[in-house]
Amino acid sequence: MTDYEYATELDVRFRDLDAMGHVNNAVYATYLEQARADYYADVVDIPLPEADTVLVNLSIAYRRPVTADETVAVALGVGDLGESSIPMEYEIRTGDGVAATAETVQVVFDRETGESRSIPQEWRDRITRYAQSDG
Amino acid sequence: MTDYEYATELDVRFRDLDAMGHVNNAVYATYLEQARADYYADVVDIPLPEADTVLVNLSIAYRRPVTADETVAVALGVGDLGESSIPMEYEIRTGDGVAATAETVQVVFDRETGESRSIPQEWRDRITRYAQSDG
Amino acid sequence: MTDYEYATELDVRFRDLDAMGHVNNAVYATYLEQARADYYADVVDIPLPEADTVLVNLSIAYRRPVTADETVAVALGVGDLGESSIPMEYEIRTGDGVAATAETVQVVFDRETGESRSIPQEWRDRITRYAQSDG
Amino acid sequence: MTDYEYATELDVRFRDLDAMGHVNNAVYATYLEQARADYYADVVDIPLPEADTVLVNLSIAYRRPVTADETVAVALGVGDLGESSIPMEYEIRTGDGVAATAETVQVVFDRETGESRSIPQEWRDRITRYAQSDG
Repeated sequence: MTDYEYATELDVRFRDLDAMGHVNNAVYATYLEQARADYYADVVDIPLPEADTVLVNLSIAYRRPVTADETVAVALGVGDLGESSIPMEYEIRTGDGVAATAETVQVVFDRETGESRSIPQEWRDRITRYAQSDG
Repeated sequence: MTDYEYATELDVRFRDLDAMGHVNNAVYATYLEQARADYYADVVDIPLPEADTVLVNLSIAYRRPVTADETVAVALGVGDLGESSIPMEYEIRTGDGVAATAETVQVVFDRETGESRSIPQEWRDRITRYAQSDG
Repeated sequence: MTDYEYATELDVRFRDLDAMGHVNNAVYATYLEQARADYYADVVDIPLPEADTVLVNLSIAYRRPVTADETVAVALGVGDLGESSIPMEYEIRTGDGVAATAETVQVVFDRETGESRSIPQEWRDRITRYAQSDG
Repeated sequence: MTDYEYATELDVRFRDLDAMGHVNNAVYATYLEQARADYYADVVDIPLPEADTVLVNLSIAYRRPVTADETVAVALGVGDLGESSIPMEYEIRTGDGVAATAETVQVVFDRETGESRSIPQEWRDRITRYAQSDG
């Protein structure tokens, strides 16, 4: 069972809208990414570009459109860690409720070989400790 | 069984890359959207902003990174049409093979009521005819 | 003489960075646009998409790169209003100082004819009043 | 005197549009950047991320909106090279004529010191030779 132990806030930008006047579907993926980036910086204590992780799966269930004058909160929860994979679940929330739910899986890899490798023990500890303290 | 009866080509832009130097994960969603927009214009004969459809599900399985000097082809196949839902499958291909596979579901809705409505018969005919002629 | 009578804050997103690891040059234009959108909403009391204005000129002088972990403030000042043109000046500021200065000119137009038209007197009043109260 | 000795073609993407239904003003900067990236790859024979240049000035004069179903050509001409600065002029063209004109200045810098440095003689030769052969 995943809880959303972490959350980040985002201001919707005019550029996030598309020709339909709503936040574009691809921008939801950007919102999720920003939540991940903030989580890595705050919890794992490593900037996303330096974390040798690669996104392997993304899925988003869109529930309702988001418009220009809203503030978005992205709630993020880490699921059961695999040997090298980090599953995450998300809710994209606005004042009107949940606009989307989403899941991602990231894999830690070795920059030299390009192969997946075990999640560093230090990351594992920080992720687990944070989930327990906050859950 | 879905075949990819339609394809569109895209040039990777420098702006598509992120700080890791690869095409950003959210941009894959933009590539899929562009394939959909081209499909609606070419096959359904209606511009995407005027097609009263809404994306309800998106999932992407990332297989390998895409870099700046690549040309991308997005193959698109329409699955079994529901009463109001249009499922699509995709492959994002580069010269090196398949970079990602993806699925989306769109729902046709009534702009007045905001409720889902049946896929217009004309769309259904064009989609089916195109799949048969090309499959 | 333009003062910067208005300011808006923006969080740098991971997606704002490009392959050089800095905020991409085009994203500065997005930051300026967001400041304009906020200004229109707050001061002129009209959402940007409904304001019948069109950007005719944009110039940006880049002074130093902006990185991922910064918060950006965009200061905005309105210059001397023309018959139909609204000139604006900007500073993009981070904790380290001014990252860029910029200027834009927008023209109010008639949606029916596509021709420029006079700035509505109500806008003129609000813009002037705000500049005086705040300057 | 600058001629436009180089040109690159771009397909307008649905994502390039904003809530007004036209190509967003910031995306013009992305189109210019893509022309530069292509120019560096084709003429200077160096990928843009590896070229140690930094954009210091950008100005765009918008003439008319660009819509979804257009193909854009960006014409690019290099002006008189300075000691370390590379001025460029552009026209963004569609089937309906010139949609925008623009100018940029880039400066070559030393990655170690962060200071500007002379344009490498090899670049200078390639840029000049290309302008002459093509102008």
